[in-house]
Amino acid sequence: MQALRSASPVCSCSSQDFAPSSVRKNVACSERSFVALKSTSRVWSSFVPRYSHNVTVSRHPQIRASAMGETESSTGEPGWVMVNGLSGKMGLETAKAALEAGLQLVPYSFTGRMGPDQGPLSKIDVEGVEVEVYGFGQRELAMDLCKQVSRRAVVIDYTVPAAVIGNASLYCSAGVPFVMGTTGGDREKLMRIVNDSKICAVIAPQMGKQVVAFQAAMEIMAEQFPGAFSGYKLKVTESHQSTKLDTSGTAKAVISSFKKLGLNFDLDQITSVREEEGYKAMQVPEDYYNAHAFHTYRVSSPDDTVAFEFKHNVCGRKIYAQGTVDAVLFLMNKIQKQTDGELEGKVFNMIDVLREGNMR
Amino acid sequence: MQALRSASPVCSCSSQDFAPSSVRKNVACSERSFVALKSTSRVWSSFVPRYSHNVTVSRHPQIRASAMGETESSTGEPGWVMVNGLSGKMGLETAKAALEAGLQLVPYSFTGRMGPDQGPLSKIDVEGVEVEVYGFGQRELAMDLCKQVSRRAVVIDYTVPAAVIGNASLYCSAGVPFVMGTTGGDREKLMRIVNDSKICAVIAPQMGKQVVAFQAAMEIMAEQFPGAFSGYKLKVTESHQSTKLDTSGTAKAVISSFKKLGLNFDLDQITSVREEEGYKAMQVPEDYYNAHAFHTYRVSSPDDTVAFEFKHNVCGRKIYAQGTVDAVLFLMNKIQKQTDGELEGKVFNMIDVLREGNMR
Repeated sequence: MQALRSASPVCSCSSQDFAPSSVRKNVACSERSFVALKSTSRVWSSFVPRYSHNVTVSRHPQIRASAMGETESSTGEPGWVMVNGLSGKMGLETAKAALEAGLQLVPYSFTGRMGPDQGPLSKIDVEGVEVEVYGFGQRELAMDLCKQVSRRAVVIDYTVPAAVIGNASLYCSAGVPFVMGTTGGDREKLMRIVNDSKICAVIAPQMGKQVVAFQAAMEIMAEQFPGAFSGYKLKVTESHQSTKLDTSGTAKAVISSFKKLGLNFDLDQITSVREEEGYKAMQVPEDYYNAHAFHTYRVSSPDDTVAFEFKHNVCGRKIYAQGTVDAVLFLMNKIQKQTDGELEGKVFNMIDVLREGNMR
Repeated sequence: MQALRSASPVCSCSSQDFAPSSVRKNVACSERSFVALKSTSRVWSSFVPRYSHNVTVSRHPQIRASAMGETESSTGEPGWVMVNGLSGKMGLETAKAALEAGLQLVPYSFTGRMGPDQGPLSKIDVEGVEVEVYGFGQRELAMDLCKQVSRRAVVIDYTVPAAVIGNASLYCSAGVPFVMGTTGGDREKLMRIVNDSKICAVIAPQMGKQVVAFQAAMEIMAEQFPGAFSGYKLKVTESHQSTKLDTSGTAKAVISSFKKLGLNFDLDQITSVREEEGYKAMQVPEDYYNAHAFHTYRVSSPDDTVAFEFKHNVCGRKIYAQGTVDAVLFLMNKIQKQTDGELEGKVFNMIDVLREGNMR
């Protein structure tokens, strides 16, 4: 179930997206001095490979064409992105979205699963790019391979909750900025690991940028206008694929905002739809019975003369994949523009990504 | 048509509700000194009646029971409200909402229409309170009568656009705070008249508090997250009574927010419904064909896998009447709490009312 949630982050709770800024820590420049470079190579300057694996990089034409090492400066060349958890649905969708956005896909990846001691577990073709997928035990090797491709790659993690902490530690020790799309795991520990590192990351359980914008709008309305809907009634219906056993976390987060607006509502009043008849009533397209997140919130006056209705209906995983890629572009832009290491230990969320404006 | 818009402020443009605070002026304490009283009598302390009409106040039992004059201090007694334009649908609905909210209704009112030189035009029964309605030419008399009932009454204006400036001037010279629900007229001049006066007022073309909250939420989302819906499509449908000839002003305001969110949309793409077949499709209850404001905004991704839908559907006038009463309660609270005349010349809007929180 956890792995499934990771692969299908539909309606995962996004409370973290609204975490107060106090949880974000911007570690001041440590005793260790960094070479003052304007390019993103700053992030990588302290990296010493723990493996001296002799990688056959030349197998990959797009890597042969890439300038390597420090000389790979910020010349406007598309950034490199490594997608871990590529064998999952969410990882694959995100890798495709990255290519669509013009990013270059690192042809190495690792998963949360164990594999053989030697060689990749499998090779996956992503729109013509062949990616070698390594097992969990060879993730350090995979990271080294990635860094030989580009020392400024950004990682996307769509693995499994059990791997979240270990992976984050690896990215931090390797000095690789990352976007954590995998849900679950010890989120506080995850934050601390980045805060204590020299890298920056985007950590968000809900990567659907537009859904996060909607949630934030409801929360801002609640904060600004408490009790504006006092006396009104609320009805919430959420429909998801039948494999989703728990109630929608996104619905819970939005309901929390509505309660601040003056609406009385108990979470057990949510109508959760998990079967075909309900899908039809909610107008879920048949092709998406197994991958959708439909939400309807209906707010009405006591006498029913006034009604507000808010819907956010998602089919498939594209919105999450695109939001993840926007988070990557956000990180690349931020790193590009930093001047004095102010991003060390910084954790961003999707609200930060949204505030930055349109990414492409 | 103007009078009709005044009587049915359905979907009037609320751009003023989002006016920058710079248009609100808080006149500093003038040379004229005011007696420092903690009660609301401050606002009235400079008033000298221009009429010494001998009013038969005793005809109205609720007035006999009321403490009069300066001694009518803030003892928690329900406030008095005068509703001008009571002969219109909006005025009558608002008077009823005021009584429902526990306010006392001043038994005098005036309209935008001319009438006989002597005596009221008519008497209107509002939930057992008989209100004498005077013609436009006798509005100063009506104001004097109001002030003999209570020197701390607040006025609600639901007259006609042509009367807006004249009425506002009268309220200001009489030193009576007011809520201007009447739309139209020279709005800038209206603001200036209050700014240059010693009173405060709520001026808002859209009194539906919850609708204003929704509009504000969309605008805040647009300001905070520009381009969040870039590439998405927008479809807008609005349905109103057939007598509404122009396109919904509320829809235009919300579309302006959506455009900042990255959506391309021309105003001529709005679908305006003004006939029965359309009402049925929009599920407007038949009883409200002649008084409703239904709005649907549908935002969808290029491939239609993601859709957001926002609806605000209003039947009748109750929401506007209740919002107007909330604005009155807001003014009364503000006046009650002021300590050094900081409300002189101050114009509030419905955003200010909403920010204050639940009014009752």
